Amino acid sequence: MVDKPKRPGGRSARVRAAVHQAVTELAAERGYGAFTIGDVAARAQVADTSIYRRWGSLEALSADVALDWLTTSSPMPDTGSLRDDLRAYAAGVARDVSGPSGLAVLRLVIALAAAGEPGLAARDRFIAERGGQLQQLLDRATARGEPAPSTLDIVDHVLAPLYVRVLFGLGPLTPEYVDDLVERLLTA
Amino acid sequence: MVDKPKRPGGRSARVRAAVHQAVTELAAERGYGAFTIGDVAARAQVADTSIYRRWGSLEALSADVALDWLTTSSPMPDTGSLRDDLRAYAAGVARDVSGPSGLAVLRLVIALAAAGEPGLAARDRFIAERGGQLQQLLDRATARGEPAPSTLDIVDHVLAPLYVRVLFGLGPLTPEYVDDLVERLLTA
Repeated sequence: MVDKPKRPGGRSARVRAAVHQAVTELAAERGYGAFTIGDVAARAQVADTSIYRRWGSLEALSADVALDWLTTSSPMPDTGSLRDDLRAYAAGVARDVSGPSGLAVLRLVIALAAAGEPGLAARDRFIAERGGQLQQLLDRATARGEPAPSTLDIVDHVLAPLYVRVLFGLGPLTPEYVDDLVERLLTA
Repeated sequence: MVDKPKRPGGRSARVRAAVHQAVTELAAERGYGAFTIGDVAARAQVADTSIYRRWGSLEALSADVALDWLTTSSPMPDTGSLRDDLRAYAAGVARDVSGPSGLAVLRLVIALAAAGEPGLAARDRFIAERGGQLQQLLDRATARGEPAPSTLDIVDHVLAPLYVRVLFGLGPLTPEYVDDLVERLLTA
């Protein structure tokens, strides 16, 4: 059997997946700030020059990892009802941040802000992207005539409690607790 | 003029202050996980053996720094009214976490959880201490006959929004915003 010639997209996608995986692992094991592009390259078995060429900096790479992880593992729901959309969204976030990768990614976003200007820019890009997705969900509700909270209300009273409970180790995020956060927001 | 003999407590307190200052600076500059006890010793101009003897580990030292910082810069108010206590408490937290040391300390507590068992134990000690102080504030309200929320309600709807807005760079914590968090909690 003859090997099919590999498409550049295939190899490129494999490199990206290996590099992302290496960053997530290193962030979980050591914390952000305690590993370099060289460490990522060694773990992913790629040349560090490929990483520099493709991402430019550890900050940009980290933001790419965080954004990719959140947007693929927590897609925005569209159920036709704001309450159900927010419940599904909050349940997805709770599930994601409770897992080991979720916590590592969350810490990574937070740590980015300590990494000077490129880190701040990467963090803000990440937040703008995710905030934009959330805004679309709210805009759909408004278009249906449902009164909708702001994205910052959702950050304050749904995301922040979930994040802080996980970061500070304050107990499991039960479905009842997550639904209650949404209910409280919608009846405020 | 003859130098007064220095009290051992005086020297001990100076060493503690220098070491705490060094940890806060290094955490702000590099992030937790990116410096060692040797770095702290060099910055504080003390022998690293003194640090090991007194604190045992970087995790224990970091928890001491975080706890000391929070309990001295944000003492618990006791105004005679739950609403005023919570407003003063929230305003103090908002002021503290908005400053550069506050953000470094917040990141440090979060990063402790990534530092294995000693880090988790240190983080939990920190949270138990601070939670206990908050519980006393709520117990005083209950004793006066005022209906009081739980400490976890305060974490979820006052502390978490303040922390996450600062960690994610989501705008300044205005007095109006902070008061509104307390009002929302008390009328929920």
